[in-house]
Amino acid sequence: MKNSVELVKTQLARIDLPPNGLKLEKGGQLAELVVAYETYGVLNNQHNNAILVCHALSGDAHVAGFHENSTKPGWWDEMIGPGKGIDTDRFFVICANILGGCKGTTGPSSPDPASGRPYGSKFPQITLGDIVDVQHLLLRHLGVKRLYGVIGGSLGGMQVLEWSLRFPEMVDRCICIASAASLNAQALAFDIVGREAILSDPQWEGGDYYDTGHLPAMGLAQARMIGHITYLSPQKMETKFGREKSDAAEPLKKFNTRFQVESYLHYNGRAFVDRFDANSYLHITEAMDSYDLEERFGSLDAAFAPVRAKMLIIALSSDWLFPPEQSLEVATALLRNGKQVSYCLLDSPHGHDAFLLDIAHLTDAVQTFLCPAPPPVAVSAEETARAADRARIRRMVAPKARILDLGCGDGQLLAELADSSAARPHLGIDIDLDNIVAALSRGLDVFQGDIDNGLGMIPDDSYDYVILSQTIQVVRKPRLVLKEMLRVARAGIVTFPNFSSLGNRLSLSFNGRMPISDTLPYAWYDTPNIHLATLKDFQDLCRLEGIRIEELDCLSDCPLGLGLIKLGLPNLGADRVLCRISRLQP
Amino acid sequence: MKNSVELVKTQLARIDLPPNGLKLEKGGQLAELVVAYETYGVLNNQHNNAILVCHALSGDAHVAGFHENSTKPGWWDEMIGPGKGIDTDRFFVICANILGGCKGTTGPSSPDPASGRPYGSKFPQITLGDIVDVQHLLLRHLGVKRLYGVIGGSLGGMQVLEWSLRFPEMVDRCICIASAASLNAQALAFDIVGREAILSDPQWEGGDYYDTGHLPAMGLAQARMIGHITYLSPQKMETKFGREKSDAAEPLKKFNTRFQVESYLHYNGRAFVDRFDANSYLHITEAMDSYDLEERFGSLDAAFAPVRAKMLIIALSSDWLFPPEQSLEVATALLRNGKQVSYCLLDSPHGHDAFLLDIAHLTDAVQTFLCPAPPPVAVSAEETARAADRARIRRMVAPKARILDLGCGDGQLLAELADSSAARPHLGIDIDLDNIVAALSRGLDVFQGDIDNGLGMIPDDSYDYVILSQTIQVVRKPRLVLKEMLRVARAGIVTFPNFSSLGNRLSLSFNGRMPISDTLPYAWYDTPNIHLATLKDFQDLCRLEGIRIEELDCLSDCPLGLGLIKLGLPNLGADRVLCRISRLQP
Repeated sequence: MKNSVELVKTQLARIDLPPNGLKLEKGGQLAELVVAYETYGVLNNQHNNAILVCHALSGDAHVAGFHENSTKPGWWDEMIGPGKGIDTDRFFVICANILGGCKGTTGPSSPDPASGRPYGSKFPQITLGDIVDVQHLLLRHLGVKRLYGVIGGSLGGMQVLEWSLRFPEMVDRCICIASAASLNAQALAFDIVGREAILSDPQWEGGDYYDTGHLPAMGLAQARMIGHITYLSPQKMETKFGREKSDAAEPLKKFNTRFQVESYLHYNGRAFVDRFDANSYLHITEAMDSYDLEERFGSLDAAFAPVRAKMLIIALSSDWLFPPEQSLEVATALLRNGKQVSYCLLDSPHGHDAFLLDIAHLTDAVQTFLCPAPPPVAVSAEETARAADRARIRRMVAPKARILDLGCGDGQLLAELADSSAARPHLGIDIDLDNIVAALSRGLDVFQGDIDNGLGMIPDDSYDYVILSQTIQVVRKPRLVLKEMLRVARAGIVTFPNFSSLGNRLSLSFNGRMPISDTLPYAWYDTPNIHLATLKDFQDLCRLEGIRIEELDCLSDCPLGLGLIKLGLPNLGADRVLCRISRLQP
Repeated sequence: MKNSVELVKTQLARIDLPPNGLKLEKGGQLAELVVAYETYGVLNNQHNNAILVCHALSGDAHVAGFHENSTKPGWWDEMIGPGKGIDTDRFFVICANILGGCKGTTGPSSPDPASGRPYGSKFPQITLGDIVDVQHLLLRHLGVKRLYGVIGGSLGGMQVLEWSLRFPEMVDRCICIASAASLNAQALAFDIVGREAILSDPQWEGGDYYDTGHLPAMGLAQARMIGHITYLSPQKMETKFGREKSDAAEPLKKFNTRFQVESYLHYNGRAFVDRFDANSYLHITEAMDSYDLEERFGSLDAAFAPVRAKMLIIALSSDWLFPPEQSLEVATALLRNGKQVSYCLLDSPHGHDAFLLDIAHLTDAVQTFLCPAPPPVAVSAEETARAADRARIRRMVAPKARILDLGCGDGQLLAELADSSAARPHLGIDIDLDNIVAALSRGLDVFQGDIDNGLGMIPDDSYDYVILSQTIQVVRKPRLVLKEMLRVARAGIVTFPNFSSLGNRLSLSFNGRMPISDTLPYAWYDTPNIHLATLKDFQDLCRLEGIRIEELDCLSDCPLGLGLIKLGLPNLGADRVLCRISRLQP
């Protein structure tokens, strides 16, 4: 993955503006606009292979490859390149430094055409909307009319969201990583304290320090140190530094320590001063802090109403700056809007920085989402039996139905049902990331989640059918799950192993042991089946819950079982049960 | 709880020092020592009712009651007073401002006897050890020879730990809340950035600002703002502020915002400057940061070897500054040392500040630990049956055995076993806080925890018996739990419901439903019993795991069951099984 040797160069685009310049959302305007950008790969003739990458707070246009005479790759080089997660043999990738930045695109340190000297305090207030508008102008400048995808993490993820609703007709796929529809109070607090450090640095000079021969270095370093704490998870901090001390010889200044974490913070604070501009930091964090889709549109649901792209929302497990709940909020707001959206939670120890570090994990999700390719069909006796059960479920589902599959596994059943249905949306929910990635590779919309927590993110009557196939016995709260199923749909299909099959009864009565069979293949001490029931038990619960069993299909793989079912003894004959249920009218 | 009207006054004690003053751990010395303190209640003649309260970073001696002409109660007034968690009708409570502070006890702003002017940069480096030594000197000054208890949270909890090992003969009980044996890397990082803010404030003047007419107000406020973020949980931040904005009329300074969290941070930053001294902040955080029992003693185990007090370690669920894992580390190090130690995790949304805010929760644990009082014995048919089972377990346990009870519930079995055993220590583990508090009220040592995570904190062969009574069927990993039992003890006692009892077989075979009975009283869909087994299944697993069943007691409440057991059909007759197991020799 690391042997990309693609040489790239940051280009400068001088964007044509109307005579009165670029109008900004907060009322300011810019007479000139330069955008620094890089591209990788080739735009095809159909103009349908362009992917825009949006960078985070301190990033720049140099996202992949190498600059001449430099050994430092772009900031996401592991993700982007020939054969990589975003394959530049296939896609035309664009990344541009954002408006307000200090890496080539117009920002507070750029010359103000009015005076020829840096804008400084005269640089107008910007928003995420302005940042995305400028990216849009760049694409027009480059002749790119559609985007196959937009992708970004953190502040870059906010830009992705803004793209999805600002230019919905232009974007096919969006990947929003470790981000949110607004910062939460804690993240705001850190930004507030970081800005305060710059503002209270006497060398900031109200923003006009460029000609003074000094910089608000102390304040900017202080802000960056706070930032660096928030980018790492506490676990990562602990494994990376713990309480280790450096054995540097130079004497300590009073109240400084030898803790390695102190050297790390000091080093990163100082290094940031060399490569970043304090005013850019103020303007960009201000834009990020004031980004609030809920406030702007009244609700997240209203915000996402115009979205037309297929969305993938990725959260990072140990990220506490943009915690997973916030990604989930975005994903569920899209879901409530009936949009095509998938959500997954990558398990990573690296905290917020995982979107830059845990590339192997990210690549799986990004690649399968961008280029779905269903896995080959397995051939085995087991698979044949499972296929037969799936066929029975398909027969129970009316055509053109909207389907939710709880515990969807690798998505095979949902893919088959989706194929036979013109309606949208379908959704799969599964607790396991590998299953989510497998389902993404089938082009399905899937949510990673634990159905034992309920289906709170799904409004009433959103689907025609909810499928719960061989799953009710593994959940902690079967009753809650059933209830939720018939809240979000009028009909459900439940399949489960029947504990009172003849074989199971014999095992208990004559062998004196918990049954182990094809349908219950686990030993008692390591079975995932923690809430087993008989057909009669299930029927009792349905009665109790006001659930009607509309159709009952009792299955057995042995002739004796089938015979008993035919004799009218399904609770004795069935190895497993498949039934369609619905709510009784109140 | 809030109507305490006790009037108190902060006293100043001028401590008698040897002619060359007070020697400090880092080599410095102090020619004079004044300690500010308050007391509540009356020291009894036996001198066995004194409790020392240790305050946190910015606290002071005024812990309870009111000062004359003030309506502001002491900082822990809800906890301390007549009839409260720490009952001043019973206990003599002492709280003193710590060394290095700025609330009356000698610190950097105190006059240096050498010059008559504030110490400033001349104030020597202090440690937690020095802080505790000064408290010890105060107690001697007050004629207090023993402590019934020492209690404190956060930095106060570190003082409690230091007391337990520095003056082990003097302390009977220690309560350490939301604390640690050292700060973790993340907490260090926040302190480092906070100090950096003060050190880089030009008005700090190397520490000698007292006579300059100005203060390092910006730096101290900045440090305090960072601190305030870390004291609250992100959830609490969200519910308290979210993204709410104030509608104040005054114009905003550039890059300031109207977010309420900004007003809160600014307000608290400014307010802190009025009530706290920057040099005290530097000295005390330096002492806290350098506190490291592992580094000092080679290991936590070695550190706690001298402890003689009964210890209660309390963690707070949403505390991310002193996260629960760190309290658990302290507790397990004490446990490995064979000390009497209890650990509990209070569920609170308030973050680190919960030790000041969630008093109702804390009171339960503190009160029962300080004044155990076993609950009255219940009288019921059920209780009689359970008492009979407990009597059978008691008969299986050799006298003077060390006992670990997994899933100990309210501790009744363990209390009975402990009564009949002279040996120590016994320990109960339970997942539920109410059970932990109930067990504390019996004077037992208990750990709150989930045995499905294993017993990693317990060394091999620490106990003679491990009890797993009616618990194996509710754990997620019965095999792991069994394995762990016989790692930490040579013998175990397991009791569980027998799924293949006659009644259960009949229920399944003739009723076609999952059994519900006295021993299995739950419906399939809401039973906590997720890993059911028959006697034979259990025997099979023991064989597989190299476990010998030394003694088997098959129980039934009905004559038919008892008859079947007598006939040599225990797997059919027993409703429940009670057995003593041991490791097969390799």
